[in-house]
Amino acid sequence: MPLTENASPEASTGNFNRWLRINDHVSDDLFCRIARGEEPAHFVHEDEDLMVIMDRYPVSRGQVLVVPRVHFRFFHEMPNELVGHFYSVAAAAGRAIDSLMSPDAVVMLARGLRIPHYHLMLIPAHRGDFVSSLFSLMDSVQGFPASARSEIARRYSSLGRALTVPEISDARLEEDAHALGNALRKEIARA
Amino acid sequence: MPLTENASPEASTGNFNRWLRINDHVSDDLFCRIARGEEPAHFVHEDEDLMVIMDRYPVSRGQVLVVPRVHFRFFHEMPNELVGHFYSVAAAAGRAIDSLMSPDAVVMLARGLRIPHYHLMLIPAHRGDFVSSLFSLMDSVQGFPASARSEIARRYSSLGRALTVPEISDARLEEDAHALGNALRKEIARA
Repeated sequence: MPLTENASPEASTGNFNRWLRINDHVSDDLFCRIARGEEPAHFVHEDEDLMVIMDRYPVSRGQVLVVPRVHFRFFHEMPNELVGHFYSVAAAAGRAIDSLMSPDAVVMLARGLRIPHYHLMLIPAHRGDFVSSLFSLMDSVQGFPASARSEIARRYSSLGRALTVPEISDARLEEDAHALGNALRKEIARA
Repeated sequence: MPLTENASPEASTGNFNRWLRINDHVSDDLFCRIARGEEPAHFVHEDEDLMVIMDRYPVSRGQVLVVPRVHFRFFHEMPNELVGHFYSVAAAAGRAIDSLMSPDAVVMLARGLRIPHYHLMLIPAHRGDFVSSLFSLMDSVQGFPASARSEIARRYSSLGRALTVPEISDARLEEDAHALGNALRKEIARA
């Protein structure tokens, strides 16, 4: 669909017009609609180039998404002018998650297989939880060739036992968005 | 262990001393050893700040790691001076993978649960392969609450069937490193 049907006044600010040389179409996916204010989201932080929002369907409490306002399908389509700012805010968000949630790791993940608008997931992982079990299985597939299929099978079973969906209420998401937003802004100010 | 026991001439070049204010210890993990030239790797690209190498144990052909030479445990510990350069090279690597491997997506992943030295994995994903099945399961855990446990179970079974370890020879890794390196350098020159 042509740009003119979708561009909003908000989207037209900042670097938007420059990037349109790369993205000559604007899409209508979930994150484009959130960027245009047409869908609600629990905002942790935003500026003219990007949004940090709570993942509405997290695998772990405190999971956020860092999303460019302009529609790029993959991370490798973002122009270098945006890259430094985007990932320095992502790093500040990672430090905010680390300080508030005390996870064993903050997993950084972008899949690009579902919603065609780049969104970087930052996921607090705790040993034994779903996401650490998922990557423990991936580790075994990567690290142990055919000789250790029993280890792969063991981790696959562990993952089956860790298949729980966290039930996180809207109120909890809003509360976490507020706390993470404060921590993130402190991290940005400090950097 | 103290820095002086581990610093090498190579590691002392560039921005290394500046970053040591943040990292007052140098570690001895796999990527520190590769950065110091003490372990071999299939290099796609390198400069004084980072390395792009083939993942020795990939889940998908063409999988690379982008790694800072200096030891940072997590992405959120890298200083902003490094961030822009690091991710613009990562983006060029993503475009190189996209052009050479034609995957359905290039997955960006850093787990931080195993080797304690930040390494960003760029994984070509094809529908139905192990990595897309892994994230399809994650999607179902995220997107379908308790009402659709049958869908989660179905995707868990599909993942079990996709548990294959790719057998990729050293010769193939070296060949891919060469081709990806040429494509990456063209992408950097173009950006």
